[in-house]
Amino acid sequence: MSTSPKKILLVGAGGTLGQAVAQHLRQRGHEVIGASRNDPAHPIDLRSDDSVSTLLGRLGPLDAIIATTGKVHFGPLPEMDAAQFDVGLQDKLLGQVRLALLGQHHLNAGGSITLTTGILTEQPIAQGASATAVNAAVEGFVRAAALELRNGLRINAVSPSVLTEALDSYGPFFPGFEPVDAARAALAYQRSVEGIGNGQVFKVW
Amino acid sequence: MSTSPKKILLVGAGGTLGQAVAQHLRQRGHEVIGASRNDPAHPIDLRSDDSVSTLLGRLGPLDAIIATTGKVHFGPLPEMDAAQFDVGLQDKLLGQVRLALLGQHHLNAGGSITLTTGILTEQPIAQGASATAVNAAVEGFVRAAALELRNGLRINAVSPSVLTEALDSYGPFFPGFEPVDAARAALAYQRSVEGIGNGQVFKVW
Repeated sequence: MSTSPKKILLVGAGGTLGQAVAQHLRQRGHEVIGASRNDPAHPIDLRSDDSVSTLLGRLGPLDAIIATTGKVHFGPLPEMDAAQFDVGLQDKLLGQVRLALLGQHHLNAGGSITLTTGILTEQPIAQGASATAVNAAVEGFVRAAALELRNGLRINAVSPSVLTEALDSYGPFFPGFEPVDAARAALAYQRSVEGIGNGQVFKVW
Repeated sequence: MSTSPKKILLVGAGGTLGQAVAQHLRQRGHEVIGASRNDPAHPIDLRSDDSVSTLLGRLGPLDAIIATTGKVHFGPLPEMDAAQFDVGLQDKLLGQVRLALLGQHHLNAGGSITLTTGILTEQPIAQGASATAVNAAVEGFVRAAALELRNGLRINAVSPSVLTEALDSYGPFFPGFEPVDAARAALAYQRSVEGIGNGQVFKVW
């Protein structure tokens, strides 16, 4: 069985994970349009309705939308304040939700949305209370939104462990966690795009 | 075994659930300080650091903090926008998190924080994608924060199904859901306050 080539918008294409996802999906024959905040050809700021709508309008109908981006605040709970907590709410959580809410109207029937969470949803680390909350929220959104999407649209999340390529910066936060290569995590995005899963969290750990 | 009386701040004391929780905990012999946005004696706006800090400072050290409040937007996914989604992020999610983040510094050793989520975390309903995300985030926060609190502090969530008392307004959103009386849900708050649970979600359904 072969999959017909799909037109895919990938937001966060410049990141470690995004690069691996783009490479893998292009090798599968798909057209991957890489976008990110500072991309000269396809700029997109997930914190802005206007920015997201503008790019979606320019690209025309898509078969899949993927987000591999999102910032959260890491810090000790006793020192955390609400403004710091809100960083992740506005960026990794609402940013991805905004892309999904606007994107649902720019997808061909049967298209898919794939968001990114992470192992912290289920396995908290020190200084990661905001990240756990944000990832859990994205997975909750996916669980509920899957039941309301129309035109056969699907939505899933990919939840990787810490990436091997990111161990230099994030390793100390994840003591004893088994890292995964970005190329392995990329498989889960293919699974979401080419498979029939809906409302799923594809764990890569 | 008897429990020594505790000094408890209850935010959302004016609501259906809050009233039941206050009544139950007072019957147990605890001192319950009821607070809400428009309470003349104990006003608190969970959307404002200043408001929360002011009330916490006035009350002096507490043994328990409970929130039974929080607003989210309900609406069909195809019509939902990011601003509507953000209502629940700022109110039910960040409001309760703000109370916990500031409250941790106003609790006696061994004190507890109890937040409120709901059955929608796990069992989505139509028009409830934002509610599922918000509840899941609060539960994620509780799961992670429990591992970082100091001085023997504990944090839990209570997740009720739709309340019998709220069926007139919310019933149509919960077709076939078994409602629970607010008085039954109140038991779970007692369990969080008087028990040893930490990082738990007490489901009342």
